[in-house]
Amino acid sequence: MREQVLKKLQLATTKALVIECTVPKPGNVSRYHDFPEQKFEHFLVSGIELGMRLPELAAKFSLGDTVMKATRTMLSVQKGGNTHLGSIFLLTPLLASACANNGVVNFADVQTRIKRADWEDTLKYIKAIRMTDFDKLPDIEGKLNVKSDDIANFVRRKKVALYDWMSAGIEVNGICYEYVECYKLTQGTAKEIIENLDKGIEKAVQHGFLFALSSYVDNLVIGKKGKRYALQLQKLAAELYNKRAAFAPVGCKSQMKFRQLFKKLERDEVNPGTTADIIVSALFLVFLDEVRI
Amino acid sequence: MREQVLKKLQLATTKALVIECTVPKPGNVSRYHDFPEQKFEHFLVSGIELGMRLPELAAKFSLGDTVMKATRTMLSVQKGGNTHLGSIFLLTPLLASACANNGVVNFADVQTRIKRADWEDTLKYIKAIRMTDFDKLPDIEGKLNVKSDDIANFVRRKKVALYDWMSAGIEVNGICYEYVECYKLTQGTAKEIIENLDKGIEKAVQHGFLFALSSYVDNLVIGKKGKRYALQLQKLAAELYNKRAAFAPVGCKSQMKFRQLFKKLERDEVNPGTTADIIVSALFLVFLDEVRI
Repeated sequence: MREQVLKKLQLATTKALVIECTVPKPGNVSRYHDFPEQKFEHFLVSGIELGMRLPELAAKFSLGDTVMKATRTMLSVQKGGNTHLGSIFLLTPLLASACANNGVVNFADVQTRIKRADWEDTLKYIKAIRMTDFDKLPDIEGKLNVKSDDIANFVRRKKVALYDWMSAGIEVNGICYEYVECYKLTQGTAKEIIENLDKGIEKAVQHGFLFALSSYVDNLVIGKKGKRYALQLQKLAAELYNKRAAFAPVGCKSQMKFRQLFKKLERDEVNPGTTADIIVSALFLVFLDEVRI
Repeated sequence: MREQVLKKLQLATTKALVIECTVPKPGNVSRYHDFPEQKFEHFLVSGIELGMRLPELAAKFSLGDTVMKATRTMLSVQKGGNTHLGSIFLLTPLLASACANNGVVNFADVQTRIKRADWEDTLKYIKAIRMTDFDKLPDIEGKLNVKSDDIANFVRRKKVALYDWMSAGIEVNGICYEYVECYKLTQGTAKEIIENLDKGIEKAVQHGFLFALSSYVDNLVIGKKGKRYALQLQKLAAELYNKRAAFAPVGCKSQMKFRQLFKKLERDEVNPGTTADIIVSALFLVFLDEVRI
């Protein structure tokens, strides 16, 4: 990979990770909101380190090795624990493709890479997940549940390829959905952000977040509060997205409803973190286009 | 320069620039405060781009060419204008030294590099300053005032070396002071930050800011409000630094006085931006030590 291409990918990755965690999004860490154990600066430092290292890892290693090494990096460079596991998962195939295609993401190639990844990659994804706070994830019915103690043996015995493993999770997990549906949410969210950049990056990202949250149930919300709560949240996000609440003037009804959503998720300690990861992968596509904010 | 060294310098530079603009400091843009035309995200994007590019520039080019190229980068990558001119000036000799010394800043070498820089470097520094909002700077008596229309001719005619030009500004300009006094403020501020890291990066940086502001008048404050106002501010900062106001519990008198300083500078539209630049160079030294926050 040429040096210029690497630099372009490092910049787009870093900007995506840093701007995502900066923009206030309901239930997530942002410039205005810390979690008790995870501060804004943990996300910034993790974002900077991953932005610098992930492109090279994706160029050199398999998908499985890349996510495992990047997860280790994330956990070792700051004290806030798991800040970006989902983002690492989403960025890795995109970067692998971009590294091989002169800095351009080719989605057919992304799909091929995901379908080609074998059971050893699956094992490494599982290892990466189990390095983190994986108890927060919702259960998946059947033998492929990452929370099952027997999962590694099962994958090894049955030689479960990455695509097949991801397919088992698409009902409850947005990242699985993206792997199987070739980044449909990411691509849609990037389109929403780009179309609204003239209103400022903050509002454009918030609108993109409402789009993503309304398009898919967030698996961390299911894990915390169950499917019913997650579906209600999805419905409310759809309403706010349709009313373009992110762009509504202060004091207007939809803007107030959007504010209330921030407060509600904070109070309920609900974190739609996978939807934030979708924002990272979408922003990666946006910044790869070298937009200027 | 080895690839590992370059990466280390890129990471330390990016973290320094991103964390500096994040931490709330009186009169400056931060995670909680935007200026009307300069938003937090402008500082973030500029910080990311400079963090990636400045180390390589400093390794390849003279001090003068580095600051000129970096200033152009800063102005072209985001829409907020001059976010980091002072930081570029402070980081450039440090990075030039670190690039040549296996990633370690050698202050004797820094001094030598500054003393070796000739009148052509001076011209390029002037060019860089005059690309930005240089009307904000305080005047310097005599022929070496960067705001004078004849400055370039004078420097060319008299072959004014960089060190000599910087020496003319030390009364009113913290960056000149650092060039001449071999980063005394930066080194002192880094020490303050490191000694207090256990209290969290935000408070440690705020304490370092009070130290720097109490140690030297901020030239942008002089430029805006005159020397008397700047001296009063310096005195107040000394009081808050001595009382360790950055670490005082909420509701305590010195903490309230520190809060009032935020409000006062905001109301007066006073921006001690050069002191923020000192924080960048200090944080660069801190992160070069690979501290984990």
